[in-house]
Amino acid sequence: MTELAAVKAALKTQAVETPSWAYGNSGTRFKVFAQQGVPRTPQEKLEDAAQVHAFTGVAPTVALHIPWDKVEDYAALAKFAEERGVKLGAINSNTFQDDDYKLGSICHPDASVRRKALDHLLECVDIMDATGSTDLKLWFADGTNYPGQDDLRARQDRLAEGLSEVYDRLGDGQRMLLEYKFFEPAFYSTDVPDWGTAYAHCLKLGEKAQVVVDTGHHAPGTNIEFIVTTLLREGKLGGFDFNSRFYADDDLMVGAADPFQLFRIMYEVVRGGGFSSEVAFMLDQCHNIEAKIPAIIRSVMNVQEATAKALLVDRDALAVAQREGDVLEANAVLMDAYNTDVRPLLAEVREEMGLDANPIAAYKRSGWAEKIVASRVGGEQAGWGA
Amino acid sequence: MTELAAVKAALKTQAVETPSWAYGNSGTRFKVFAQQGVPRTPQEKLEDAAQVHAFTGVAPTVALHIPWDKVEDYAALAKFAEERGVKLGAINSNTFQDDDYKLGSICHPDASVRRKALDHLLECVDIMDATGSTDLKLWFADGTNYPGQDDLRARQDRLAEGLSEVYDRLGDGQRMLLEYKFFEPAFYSTDVPDWGTAYAHCLKLGEKAQVVVDTGHHAPGTNIEFIVTTLLREGKLGGFDFNSRFYADDDLMVGAADPFQLFRIMYEVVRGGGFSSEVAFMLDQCHNIEAKIPAIIRSVMNVQEATAKALLVDRDALAVAQREGDVLEANAVLMDAYNTDVRPLLAEVREEMGLDANPIAAYKRSGWAEKIVASRVGGEQAGWGA
Amino acid sequence: MTELAAVKAALKTQAVETPSWAYGNSGTRFKVFAQQGVPRTPQEKLEDAAQVHAFTGVAPTVALHIPWDKVEDYAALAKFAEERGVKLGAINSNTFQDDDYKLGSICHPDASVRRKALDHLLECVDIMDATGSTDLKLWFADGTNYPGQDDLRARQDRLAEGLSEVYDRLGDGQRMLLEYKFFEPAFYSTDVPDWGTAYAHCLKLGEKAQVVVDTGHHAPGTNIEFIVTTLLREGKLGGFDFNSRFYADDDLMVGAADPFQLFRIMYEVVRGGGFSSEVAFMLDQCHNIEAKIPAIIRSVMNVQEATAKALLVDRDALAVAQREGDVLEANAVLMDAYNTDVRPLLAEVREEMGLDANPIAAYKRSGWAEKIVASRVGGEQAGWGA
Amino acid sequence: MTELAAVKAALKTQAVETPSWAYGNSGTRFKVFAQQGVPRTPQEKLEDAAQVHAFTGVAPTVALHIPWDKVEDYAALAKFAEERGVKLGAINSNTFQDDDYKLGSICHPDASVRRKALDHLLECVDIMDATGSTDLKLWFADGTNYPGQDDLRARQDRLAEGLSEVYDRLGDGQRMLLEYKFFEPAFYSTDVPDWGTAYAHCLKLGEKAQVVVDTGHHAPGTNIEFIVTTLLREGKLGGFDFNSRFYADDDLMVGAADPFQLFRIMYEVVRGGGFSSEVAFMLDQCHNIEAKIPAIIRSVMNVQEATAKALLVDRDALAVAQREGDVLEANAVLMDAYNTDVRPLLAEVREEMGLDANPIAAYKRSGWAEKIVASRVGGEQAGWGA
Repeated sequence: MTELAAVKAALKTQAVETPSWAYGNSGTRFKVFAQQGVPRTPQEKLEDAAQVHAFTGVAPTVALHIPWDKVEDYAALAKFAEERGVKLGAINSNTFQDDDYKLGSICHPDASVRRKALDHLLECVDIMDATGSTDLKLWFADGTNYPGQDDLRARQDRLAEGLSEVYDRLGDGQRMLLEYKFFEPAFYSTDVPDWGTAYAHCLKLGEKAQVVVDTGHHAPGTNIEFIVTTLLREGKLGGFDFNSRFYADDDLMVGAADPFQLFRIMYEVVRGGGFSSEVAFMLDQCHNIEAKIPAIIRSVMNVQEATAKALLVDRDALAVAQREGDVLEANAVLMDAYNTDVRPLLAEVREEMGLDANPIAAYKRSGWAEKIVASRVGGEQAGWGA
Repeated sequence: MTELAAVKAALKTQAVETPSWAYGNSGTRFKVFAQQGVPRTPQEKLEDAAQVHAFTGVAPTVALHIPWDKVEDYAALAKFAEERGVKLGAINSNTFQDDDYKLGSICHPDASVRRKALDHLLECVDIMDATGSTDLKLWFADGTNYPGQDDLRARQDRLAEGLSEVYDRLGDGQRMLLEYKFFEPAFYSTDVPDWGTAYAHCLKLGEKAQVVVDTGHHAPGTNIEFIVTTLLREGKLGGFDFNSRFYADDDLMVGAADPFQLFRIMYEVVRGGGFSSEVAFMLDQCHNIEAKIPAIIRSVMNVQEATAKALLVDRDALAVAQREGDVLEANAVLMDAYNTDVRPLLAEVREEMGLDANPIAAYKRSGWAEKIVASRVGGEQAGWGA
Repeated sequence: MTELAAVKAALKTQAVETPSWAYGNSGTRFKVFAQQGVPRTPQEKLEDAAQVHAFTGVAPTVALHIPWDKVEDYAALAKFAEERGVKLGAINSNTFQDDDYKLGSICHPDASVRRKALDHLLECVDIMDATGSTDLKLWFADGTNYPGQDDLRARQDRLAEGLSEVYDRLGDGQRMLLEYKFFEPAFYSTDVPDWGTAYAHCLKLGEKAQVVVDTGHHAPGTNIEFIVTTLLREGKLGGFDFNSRFYADDDLMVGAADPFQLFRIMYEVVRGGGFSSEVAFMLDQCHNIEAKIPAIIRSVMNVQEATAKALLVDRDALAVAQREGDVLEANAVLMDAYNTDVRPLLAEVREEMGLDANPIAAYKRSGWAEKIVASRVGGEQAGWGA
Repeated sequence: MTELAAVKAALKTQAVETPSWAYGNSGTRFKVFAQQGVPRTPQEKLEDAAQVHAFTGVAPTVALHIPWDKVEDYAALAKFAEERGVKLGAINSNTFQDDDYKLGSICHPDASVRRKALDHLLECVDIMDATGSTDLKLWFADGTNYPGQDDLRARQDRLAEGLSEVYDRLGDGQRMLLEYKFFEPAFYSTDVPDWGTAYAHCLKLGEKAQVVVDTGHHAPGTNIEFIVTTLLREGKLGGFDFNSRFYADDDLMVGAADPFQLFRIMYEVVRGGGFSSEVAFMLDQCHNIEAKIPAIIRSVMNVQEATAKALLVDRDALAVAQREGDVLEANAVLMDAYNTDVRPLLAEVREEMGLDANPIAAYKRSGWAEKIVASRVGGEQAGWGA
């Protein structure tokens, strides 16, 4: 197989998981702008996700968020998805939207609130059993807003205790992905604020616990690809929540703010053996003002383009330049791949997969957007609160 | 008058404006945690604000937010306030919560949306006429989320045009306070992102236009007191929106995150002649998880403490050390004031004003908290959307 | 002329000024790593700069730094440059390396130090008269390290007074470019920390005073292209000091850290009429660990590539999408230009200019690097202190 | 013993290590401003450090930096120190100032450079054997300036290998303190950029490897006290390098930029059992423009004041408020300690220790400053390069 053929083969195996909640309404604390045609049920979210997969060919699974996607019969939901060409992916827990969680969930000072949160997490594993999902993605809004508000160390003890109970409940082939976040909604301390904290907890928990890197959850200036490298080296990179940001956790389309950074991240993934592994590539975005389905298609394409460029890096030439300490040449080898316009290559890949070369145009022509605007009338639109 | 007497006299004249919306519910994009006893009407907000003034003695005015505080009869509202010991303060406009404003208000690409936003601003001046308010506080959520989304320069032209129309509507003794913000809710570009932009527009508009410094609206590391110094020197400091932050626009209690910064800001205010001037000292905070009225009392007290320390700086000794280039001594003179525990001094000031030395304790004893929890049942609690 | 022909014509007129000091040694506070073949005299710096122009065709001028490039006979130096195919560009002043400047230069509390600094600035204008340079570039390291160290406002007064005296000395066709910087070497306050401060001073000085945007001199997250837009709109953009950074003022090769940002900046330049204007496009970089001449060639090429992409933006299509509020389409139009591989186009441009399509390769083949290593032996290498 | 007596007793046992290099000249990349009376030899640095201890009573040890403090006979140096009332402390290695280290030291792509760096580190352990020092403090300037310059993961492998060799050389009672740094002098990637990386390496190395927290080495907004809490909880906090910063690694006097942060850090130290433990409290500062000895005295005092406030926190009241979820009261308990003026308490402590209540004034009166200016004439002043 030629090198280009290998790159194309790799691109055809790519899988990006889209999140059910990105199809629903979202916004900022100032305002949620509702969009026409937004799904009202988990099933309608899956229908939209199926469109993304139909046009890109590389978005075969859909992450669920509990309770937003709670249904009576998860087996039926899984079947519904498969009939439309997609599968259910990671189960995402929610321990931040009940009034009880004002001061935290599994780190809360009150044992009864911790118990409630833990029961929810255990229920999520029950749902995994029902859906066949292998990944439990845990993000905790836990933290404090004011110095002194709670004891930072006691919160770590509670966190460790809670995670341990959930970990013990995991079955064979199930794992726990622990997400860290620099800040928000907590404004003074966050209980899992950085990769180091997530890593330290996962290490103690065991092999089934791994770290999730959300690309928007870092301090300004953080070298995210270094973290990716390190977690891969430690065998602790569970997956990504992709999105992009100029400032805080803006949750813009991945690759929209800093496409070069996304390329560097994907290069470290490829270099570290994370591409064809169990690392989960997920989106976690908010399409507050742009049309949701095409925004998600664009995001998937952005990941593809960054991956293609990463695969095209001439690693032999790079190794030579690095070994020789030729700073400019080594940088130039990397930039040569980045500066390549990979859109024609990806068009070929799509056509070889039996897809339209231009997913956005094909989606627009499909009439789906008009159809959902016309049909999804009445009911309550899905959003972060439903 | 001795020096200490002068400091006490100055502290007695202090005036901090509290915002009506801080008495209502607020939260993050993840969740608004409702609190018991929260006001349901503008009148109930004024009642709470009157409590803050009753116990601190230095919070005599209340800022209104339109349309959240819209009433039929503003004269009656003003009378209602005065009967409870407070007055109506600045009028704050809202051009970010209508569906029309998804892509902006007075910077929106569509002229009809700009017109709607402008009509709202002009209505705010009408309300000022009715309430006797002298300040129109303008904060625009306008901006873009993605590069290319709109033309940055055309938006500046529209901004200038809109501000100009509002400026021309201002009556004698009325002014326009233009607020800038680094980011949020716009995530790529903001149309008034920094003091320079606000200043440039105000300069062209004329004397009635001045800049508002919201202490939470800056890039990480920004030296806010330098901006205060510069705006005072230019005669363009209209006022403050006080709050504090560790990360983004966290809207925590002023002085809670970095009390030394608040002191430095107040020192520059005092040094630049801004204390006994037309500079408006306003709070703009969100008490998402803490009790609202005592949080506002605490915030007012924090401003008082920073002011007291600023007034205590030995400016003669400071000038000598600065002139001699004695870095350590000059710094030590400033720190000496900062390190002073001014709480006993402020207790004296309060007692001389006929107030309890401890406003928080006095408020707790007053029974107001229990009263509003018991009486404010039913109806819809005030929040950012109401 | 077809559109592509127009783009190529524009690219052929591009002019990037290279700084004499980038050819000398530089480093961090921890270490300056000397490189072989580094120039020892202003003349040798000009020889190196001439190589950059010879291979790129768009680096026709060289900025001087006084006193590092002080010579007896500036007319002779100008002639020396012209004989090698380049011209002398902006004169950069230095008021930060004398022991007297420990606490500042024209903002220093001591009048005699201010006088000394001012005399240096006036001497720089004398040099401009001799070299025919039109631009005086002013960057001040002035500031303070500790709160209280000096009076922030008095320093602004001294700054205004000093700038005014220099401004009055400018002849016809000469201008003053005032650079701002967020921090470093001052660690608490900087006397010209942001574009707003530079703008306010330039506005008072008059038409000959304009602002320089150094792309590395901003707070984390700052939207630099917005500043470019605003300064162009105000007629106050004097020029750029190009470089790139991941953290602070790293002074890496322009376009190396965030090529998408450089593209956005160049798009705003083109859109705002700044490309074929008096805006000066200068590099200000430190090649601490990489070979200097090829690093500068690469930097010039990076500016060319960003410019080419900016010129390729389909502004009609962009305007339509923006007018219609089609967020995704407007962003896509911009990204389409950015994602284009413009290297073939620039190769054509170079060949049409009689140059090698690949400046780096051509430079390497030229033998210049080996020649200077062999010949520049003995003497003292140029650096920031010489 | 009353509670206040216990606080005073604790304060009397405090030990802050001062760094030999802080007594020498330092600066920024722009300029090193030499000061009169600066030490020229390791012995003279120790004499100055002895002054700091003589007036504060809590600075009993002095950190050495190799090769800056290289001597023939370390036993004699230790004796010299002890005769002046101080002891030799941690040994700090230097792998960043030889020309060989341009692309790194123990992470360098070339094995011979790595060997050289390792030999230096092993020599430092030899010196520890000679001086009786127990701590080897390792800070590596290693990293890269440009994406692609070197292989991030291979550098981690080399780091692990190098650290392991040094670790194995440690004797009984010796430990290795690994320092992390966000950036500088490397501007793209740093090989030990955050606490997580240092922690992961130390964990694998074993019990004698611990993490050092330099308070200036974090991304903007990082919650340092959280890191302190976590490292103490993990048993991996080896010590502090204290200093303060507004922007990057400014190396200002500790407590000068954000005294509230220093208090929060010391509170977590006290709360986590780190105060009377093996945690090393060291300064690592640069007194670029201020007089060095009094700056170090002031820094030691700032640590004392923050510690005193931390010890004064009413932990019982805090625990009650935290348990009850009373956000405002818990914060108020913490702030009550912070707002206390502890200078009178520390004056008492000093007098009870037989010291002057005011160390700065006593030092000024001592005549030491004048003496060293008069006597230290000729020779070469110590600085970062000597």
